[in-house]
Amino acid sequence: MGQNPQLLAMQFLPASLTTLMDELSRLPGIGPKSAQRLAFYLLKQSQSRLGQLGSAISDAKEGVLACEQCYCLTDQPLCTICNSAMRDKEQLCIVEGTLDMLAIERTGEYKGLYHVLGGRLSPLHGIGPGELKVAELFSRLTEENSPTKEIILALNPDLEGDTTALFLQNKLSSFSALHVTRIARGIPSGGNLEYTDDATLIRALQGRQAML
Amino acid sequence: MGQNPQLLAMQFLPASLTTLMDELSRLPGIGPKSAQRLAFYLLKQSQSRLGQLGSAISDAKEGVLACEQCYCLTDQPLCTICNSAMRDKEQLCIVEGTLDMLAIERTGEYKGLYHVLGGRLSPLHGIGPGELKVAELFSRLTEENSPTKEIILALNPDLEGDTTALFLQNKLSSFSALHVTRIARGIPSGGNLEYTDDATLIRALQGRQAML
Repeated sequence: MGQNPQLLAMQFLPASLTTLMDELSRLPGIGPKSAQRLAFYLLKQSQSRLGQLGSAISDAKEGVLACEQCYCLTDQPLCTICNSAMRDKEQLCIVEGTLDMLAIERTGEYKGLYHVLGGRLSPLHGIGPGELKVAELFSRLTEENSPTKEIILALNPDLEGDTTALFLQNKLSSFSALHVTRIARGIPSGGNLEYTDDATLIRALQGRQAML
Repeated sequence: MGQNPQLLAMQFLPASLTTLMDELSRLPGIGPKSAQRLAFYLLKQSQSRLGQLGSAISDAKEGVLACEQCYCLTDQPLCTICNSAMRDKEQLCIVEGTLDMLAIERTGEYKGLYHVLGGRLSPLHGIGPGELKVAELFSRLTEENSPTKEIILALNPDLEGDTTALFLQNKLSSFSALHVTRIARGIPSGGNLEYTDDATLIRALQGRQAML
């Protein structure tokens, strides 16, 4: 039987280059053509640049820990946010992952603390509360002298995010002193009513804000 | 003065992760958001997978040579195409780079040899015939017992490709025994007359093929 014609066509190329293309094309969002272009681009870079990128990848996991309090990815036992005296310890924002936390940090709008669940409830994929940092959240809240007064649920506005929010809402209802909110849904800034889907428009109407 | 808010927001992340994001975002076609997504993806991979990708990049240049005859990238003194007894040595296809050669090889339609110029004429960027493998092409053609009977110019159909083709056409006109062609321009397969630009449509009309 014949070999893959794609691979046959590549036979004349140096082995290091085909290995590189192959490795790059396994990355998410990078197809065979992009991998090819990237590989030829890298070949034109200096050896020191290649070494830097190569070891940044090999050493990616080096020193990576989960913060002991909020479970975000960090390289200290307690992340700089949990450790900071400047943050408002009365607010606690619940997010699915460290990338969501990074997105909120980037706004500069939020000055409280975080709790990273490490995912969201997804019964179809076998992810229940036990797979998430839910018990850790409640032990954080029931701790003596817990400073938390407001919980902000910053879960993604989709089916699984909604399920997780509803689950947490039920569990949190026993904490009568806690103010629990969820970040607003609506039309994104720069968006367009005409092209907005019905579900978003319904949420935008339901969540309308008083102006006068 | 304050620091970049983007960088400030990242302070809580492990240093290895921000280094990785930074390195990835310097790649062409990978913006800060893609770099972030890729970095978090890599963090979830096994150490052996990271090591493989990392060393594929660090070792990219290892053993990479230019073929002594056609100047394509390869890892032997003479590439497998120049070395092959199965190729038609009477046809010589001139391409700008190894990626163009790979594209033609992939079709499986061409069985001749190649000559890789290593670029195209671009007076604006200071690239003249001396920067390309032009002298090497002519010494190949004037060699005793040169088997070449047909030259196929497979240069890109843009201003610089056209300039290069015209230059080679003039130089090749002294070889009266050589049949010189250039790959066809026209509407791409699956294309649409209605949305085709004028320049392409003019070329398609000029290059019309007899059917009866």
